[in-house]
Amino acid sequence: MLVQDDLVITHLGPCAFESPLKRRAIQGFCDDRRILAETRLAPGAITASSVAFEEAGPRARLFFDPAQTTAAIVTCGGLSPGLNNVIRSVFLELHHNYGVPRVLGIRNGYQGLNPAEGLPPIELTPDRVEPIHNFGGTMLGSSRGPQDPGIIAQFLIDQKIDILFCVGGDGTQRGAHLIAQELLRRRLPKAVVGIPKTIDNDIAFVATSFGYNTALEKAAEVIEAAHVEAIGAPNGIGLVKLMGRHAGFIAAGAAVASQDANFVLVPEVPFPLDGFLQALDARIRRRGHALIVVAEGAGQHLIDQAATACDASGNVKMLDIGPFLADRIKAHFQQAKLPVNLKYLDPSYLIRSIRANASDCLLCDWMGRYAVHAGMAGKTDVMIGYWSHEMVHVPIGLAIRHERHMELDSDLWLAVMLTTGQPNWPIPPAR
Amino acid sequence: MLVQDDLVITHLGPCAFESPLKRRAIQGFCDDRRILAETRLAPGAITASSVAFEEAGPRARLFFDPAQTTAAIVTCGGLSPGLNNVIRSVFLELHHNYGVPRVLGIRNGYQGLNPAEGLPPIELTPDRVEPIHNFGGTMLGSSRGPQDPGIIAQFLIDQKIDILFCVGGDGTQRGAHLIAQELLRRRLPKAVVGIPKTIDNDIAFVATSFGYNTALEKAAEVIEAAHVEAIGAPNGIGLVKLMGRHAGFIAAGAAVASQDANFVLVPEVPFPLDGFLQALDARIRRRGHALIVVAEGAGQHLIDQAATACDASGNVKMLDIGPFLADRIKAHFQQAKLPVNLKYLDPSYLIRSIRANASDCLLCDWMGRYAVHAGMAGKTDVMIGYWSHEMVHVPIGLAIRHERHMELDSDLWLAVMLTTGQPNWPIPPAR
Amino acid sequence: MLVQDDLVITHLGPCAFESPLKRRAIQGFCDDRRILAETRLAPGAITASSVAFEEAGPRARLFFDPAQTTAAIVTCGGLSPGLNNVIRSVFLELHHNYGVPRVLGIRNGYQGLNPAEGLPPIELTPDRVEPIHNFGGTMLGSSRGPQDPGIIAQFLIDQKIDILFCVGGDGTQRGAHLIAQELLRRRLPKAVVGIPKTIDNDIAFVATSFGYNTALEKAAEVIEAAHVEAIGAPNGIGLVKLMGRHAGFIAAGAAVASQDANFVLVPEVPFPLDGFLQALDARIRRRGHALIVVAEGAGQHLIDQAATACDASGNVKMLDIGPFLADRIKAHFQQAKLPVNLKYLDPSYLIRSIRANASDCLLCDWMGRYAVHAGMAGKTDVMIGYWSHEMVHVPIGLAIRHERHMELDSDLWLAVMLTTGQPNWPIPPAR
Amino acid sequence: MLVQDDLVITHLGPCAFESPLKRRAIQGFCDDRRILAETRLAPGAITASSVAFEEAGPRARLFFDPAQTTAAIVTCGGLSPGLNNVIRSVFLELHHNYGVPRVLGIRNGYQGLNPAEGLPPIELTPDRVEPIHNFGGTMLGSSRGPQDPGIIAQFLIDQKIDILFCVGGDGTQRGAHLIAQELLRRRLPKAVVGIPKTIDNDIAFVATSFGYNTALEKAAEVIEAAHVEAIGAPNGIGLVKLMGRHAGFIAAGAAVASQDANFVLVPEVPFPLDGFLQALDARIRRRGHALIVVAEGAGQHLIDQAATACDASGNVKMLDIGPFLADRIKAHFQQAKLPVNLKYLDPSYLIRSIRANASDCLLCDWMGRYAVHAGMAGKTDVMIGYWSHEMVHVPIGLAIRHERHMELDSDLWLAVMLTTGQPNWPIPPAR
Repeated sequence: MLVQDDLVITHLGPCAFESPLKRRAIQGFCDDRRILAETRLAPGAITASSVAFEEAGPRARLFFDPAQTTAAIVTCGGLSPGLNNVIRSVFLELHHNYGVPRVLGIRNGYQGLNPAEGLPPIELTPDRVEPIHNFGGTMLGSSRGPQDPGIIAQFLIDQKIDILFCVGGDGTQRGAHLIAQELLRRRLPKAVVGIPKTIDNDIAFVATSFGYNTALEKAAEVIEAAHVEAIGAPNGIGLVKLMGRHAGFIAAGAAVASQDANFVLVPEVPFPLDGFLQALDARIRRRGHALIVVAEGAGQHLIDQAATACDASGNVKMLDIGPFLADRIKAHFQQAKLPVNLKYLDPSYLIRSIRANASDCLLCDWMGRYAVHAGMAGKTDVMIGYWSHEMVHVPIGLAIRHERHMELDSDLWLAVMLTTGQPNWPIPPAR
Repeated sequence: MLVQDDLVITHLGPCAFESPLKRRAIQGFCDDRRILAETRLAPGAITASSVAFEEAGPRARLFFDPAQTTAAIVTCGGLSPGLNNVIRSVFLELHHNYGVPRVLGIRNGYQGLNPAEGLPPIELTPDRVEPIHNFGGTMLGSSRGPQDPGIIAQFLIDQKIDILFCVGGDGTQRGAHLIAQELLRRRLPKAVVGIPKTIDNDIAFVATSFGYNTALEKAAEVIEAAHVEAIGAPNGIGLVKLMGRHAGFIAAGAAVASQDANFVLVPEVPFPLDGFLQALDARIRRRGHALIVVAEGAGQHLIDQAATACDASGNVKMLDIGPFLADRIKAHFQQAKLPVNLKYLDPSYLIRSIRANASDCLLCDWMGRYAVHAGMAGKTDVMIGYWSHEMVHVPIGLAIRHERHMELDSDLWLAVMLTTGQPNWPIPPAR
Repeated sequence: MLVQDDLVITHLGPCAFESPLKRRAIQGFCDDRRILAETRLAPGAITASSVAFEEAGPRARLFFDPAQTTAAIVTCGGLSPGLNNVIRSVFLELHHNYGVPRVLGIRNGYQGLNPAEGLPPIELTPDRVEPIHNFGGTMLGSSRGPQDPGIIAQFLIDQKIDILFCVGGDGTQRGAHLIAQELLRRRLPKAVVGIPKTIDNDIAFVATSFGYNTALEKAAEVIEAAHVEAIGAPNGIGLVKLMGRHAGFIAAGAAVASQDANFVLVPEVPFPLDGFLQALDARIRRRGHALIVVAEGAGQHLIDQAATACDASGNVKMLDIGPFLADRIKAHFQQAKLPVNLKYLDPSYLIRSIRANASDCLLCDWMGRYAVHAGMAGKTDVMIGYWSHEMVHVPIGLAIRHERHMELDSDLWLAVMLTTGQPNWPIPPAR
Repeated sequence: MLVQDDLVITHLGPCAFESPLKRRAIQGFCDDRRILAETRLAPGAITASSVAFEEAGPRARLFFDPAQTTAAIVTCGGLSPGLNNVIRSVFLELHHNYGVPRVLGIRNGYQGLNPAEGLPPIELTPDRVEPIHNFGGTMLGSSRGPQDPGIIAQFLIDQKIDILFCVGGDGTQRGAHLIAQELLRRRLPKAVVGIPKTIDNDIAFVATSFGYNTALEKAAEVIEAAHVEAIGAPNGIGLVKLMGRHAGFIAAGAAVASQDANFVLVPEVPFPLDGFLQALDARIRRRGHALIVVAEGAGQHLIDQAATACDASGNVKMLDIGPFLADRIKAHFQQAKLPVNLKYLDPSYLIRSIRANASDCLLCDWMGRYAVHAGMAGKTDVMIGYWSHEMVHVPIGLAIRHERHMELDSDLWLAVMLTTGQPNWPIPPAR
């Protein structure tokens, strides 16, 4: 249960400078505008909870003097559509609107914040960033894994960086939190602002993460291709593996968007393998084709039997659910003496490396610019959230303490159940 | 100011039948789940308003006996991406999930509800609707304008139609409200459920209408084309007219998504023509090219002088802002003796007639199926709204009493100001 | 060397019926219009060869009486963009322009011509074919493998089918040739017309097969995705496997279209594995990323060592070059102690199952309608070819005696060498 | 009638330098490889004409010493998809493969070759051209109209430019011819190489010009949108104006590709206005909707009556066929008292400003690089042609003496007649 204290944002100190942003466009935005954390009235309740996020946006007064500020941006983890848009909007907002003279691009994720890696930052310019939103990927490069917060703090001191924007997922935000805490401990007036990146849409307090809608678009296209294959051959079965290690948002969303899926398997529902195969068998006998969408994180509850079956040397590995399911399906129909044509599609890189679609372009521009507003106002250890169609400030420490899953009583999962007609497998209570 | 009484939904009567969806994931959905109407805590307030919408979704018990029900669906007004998706999802939900035996498609909008027009409804079948979501437009045809509610009520009686789904904009919902009121007056147990359709995104209590995101995608593509033209010729000016009679959502959203616009003119901001031309002149002299996005409803405050200037016979007409602006821009630069290359693009039909993108496919599926749930549960005079990322029930009478505009202190308009750098023209107080 | 006798087309007999197309623009088309088989003047030659194909197109007089004709169409082998377009244009030409009353769709490839398979043909109608060109795949289904020509001949007799259109690749055309020969042997006045389908673009006398250009479009998109991945990670290597069992047209064309590939490996060039790895190593050390496009049929000369290395039980299988190369690349850099990020993309189904692009729509319409013209004029054992931008008649027996590869002195391969800068590996003479 | 003398290419002199291009990739290419100009055997003929083009491609020996060469590239006229691709491939071929140290980009078309315009050329670099093929338009800018050949010759001397690549249409090639002639007259060892650009596909000896296939793709999309509009309203009529001032290739190709058009009006067929309106009337009464595609150059034979009707002040202007037809159609149905819904679409800029599709990317790369080969080998006054699927050398003087129209006995026009079923209007003999 959220309490208001969890939602308090850390400030570096009083705001001594006036914002150069055009007056009237920013009127109304202030620390007092708040967005309720709970938009649903609790069943039976007659009073709404007033626990609320601070609304994000430009502030009339700033902690940092724009003319004296240096900012840096780093992108971490796997690719997601929109990374370049975020880099570009952060830069353009700092450069054109605030007049910040020096903005650095950190190379290859957190590696570029460790001098030992030998990757000096690059200085961003309008020419350099101008066309990048037309391309997928990140112009700064990326990498996985953390670096020592102490080393990073020293790097920020050496490079005279006042604000660090950290674009990345759960792990990246954990790193950003540690950096922010280290800077606060050293009483350094430096801000760390997180921008959530997760193609899986699984970061807390981010209703829709950038890249997610683009991913749905492409994933739905892949599902349609699999559908064409499935209906083009006798007893055709299309099996599509989509992203989603801990949450089935992409699998569910793309399945509903395409309207072609008959089964959607997600991490949130530990489906029974036999039950699934029986339902698939029935579908094939009845209709002559079937289409299955599986999130990469689905079926991990099958890992023990899989590990035992697959790996004689005793190593228990993460189960690659795609080939595993393909094998089991083939085995089932071989035993049932029903010849099927199974086509397995694993489009992963094709989805995450494309350019952002229009709604993601909007999200990226908002998140990037609002992160700048937060940083210039001296807020730190703060992540940009997106809640009730509004941008909000979320303490990073709070965001990383929560996990976001697809609720099984949500509109999205209901849509999956209604469009696929798949069995409503019971969820084991022990989960 | 909304009060809870405004949000009460009309029911036809007690629900005597059990829903056949009970095997599906409908647990949790009920009339008691409510979504707050206000998600922002009023400045200075410490208590949130508990005025709340009824959450939409399937209900465990139904007013209509599915096996004895006839439903009909009608699409009205201009095209919008997703109409076919809505038709299809309404049908599939009724047919497959509820087992409703007879679903009619009304032809050519409300005309098809008037026997005098000679357009008998068509009976929908799975084969007929199967591929339609892959196409723009509406398989049922459409038309504009109302029909007599009394005649429609009689038509519903004659055709034994129990539930009528009305897909359309403001005018269509007004019509639906009149039909619902007529049916209630006659104490007929027939439900009318509205599904909001507006590519302009300007219906109250619908945060994002279906078709809007698809329109942004295409409109951004058009802006990019205009940008290429503008930079490809000496002193190139691209002028793009986009939809939006009363609200600038498409112009603003597409401009920010494309990142290419230098000026965005919307109905909400009665810009000064001279001020605009001066700013454009300065931009051309400084950068050698410029891009203007104008919503069709912008600049109507210029109509008096335009009418006087353009129309000698004294007729005051709706101003076609695109050619009007093009003329004024050419005249300005001719007088300024600065040769420019102006390219005017008016893509309207190209945007509204395409198929829905993935996120709109999701919205359409949700709205269509939730309209069915509402109708089967015996709710009437109700429109499906979309608020705080949740589907809600909105009394149609309430929806049509409100207009939705782009707020000038919203994230979207702020994004326009920040990405374009256009002047922050003062809004006349009298507006 | 082609001689004119090889190019003679078999006719069923004299043409007793007037074409109903005479009102259309068919003037000029006749058996006497011929397209030269050799468009290049032999080096040193001063006289061009006059060996020429019969030009395809409508004929003023027909062998079959349209009002009494039954035709059938069958699609075989793997999917290729445009199959539905061909089915549709064959049907529409027969139905609307010739007035043929009965056109059958054979289901699941040649299987549907064998009554033992229990797949009766479906009767095509305008409604049924209307929307199908908007979808990939084939509405008739497909399968691989031949059926007995005698059984098929009997089926054609039983079903009163006069003309059979066989859409498919090399194997399908072999089958069509056997059926045509069987019918001729039995002196049955039935025509067999082949329509070449090969996404690999490897059928003789077909300069561009339908589906090929669509495949290039999609394959180039995949290469771009791989490029984004390669430059987004330290020492990133993108490896893309594309279609092309015997010919490298797709790999080469998509590589040049995308301009992103550094290495293109095709069946026509038995590259040295060590030489390739050294060149890749040098590229990575010099530029930090690399992109490799490999046709599925490339590298089969490596099979012995691969088989020995991979398969202890002694079975020599077709080498799956994608994973094989990925393994070898990883092993090379592991040994070289240079950490790389290899991303392997195998988009196959995503490319072949999409709808045809505009130029393929044109090709399909032409080929389909010209096949109808050939059949109605009583030509048999004939395939529609495409040569020097003209549609021509090619004896099927001739087409299947030739293989089409990418010439290493062609514009296409030269473009690969010039855009990639890859080593010009010597071709072993013994090949 | 072509004779071999017309096809002789002008050389600047003997080739004293060895090509740095990799040996084996270019073997086979030489001045002796020739492509027949006539690929059709004249009816009744038994001997083919041996008039043949010189095949384009790299040469083993060069006229210019690469290390001492300066080249320049200029783009003229309206936009066409692929201009940036051509610029990029010309540069990359000169820079990477030939090692030419200095390549200039001329700004704003031929204006940039006149110092009086004050537009100094820019020096191209790999970084500058790297991403440009992903964008429509031309990075160099463009303009219309000629400049004085004497001034240009002096500019080339002053700037030490050895080879000038002129990318443009008919007018541009005329200009290039005059420049080449001027240089030859002055006995200056400077080469002028034309690269044909025409989205209308109307340059002689260029079977498919770059941009044409991309234009078809987009134009077909627009036709589909118009089709959706036409069928979505009672008696809907879609009217689409496409490019094509002198030739109907785009209108015809897009109409066939989309399969949706009922009437295609092109410059080559001076259709009778009344006949057209009667056929349209019949179609509307029979089917309830219709779709018309009109090339911008169609119907100019109607200009006298149109001029008289439209323009009271006596000025005879080029007829804008789109609004003219729209007016006549509306007037016809008003008189006939049949209410129709006419939607007029004029997508021009949206089509010509987009990025090239895959097959155009290939064409651009070929044409650009082959132009470089021609120039380096010292050929001048030469244009790259595309004939029988091969790149050839065409004397510019020859190309500009011919006009390319769509033949009315071609496959393309036949396809229009067969897919639309439109009347086969007689062509007046006086044409």
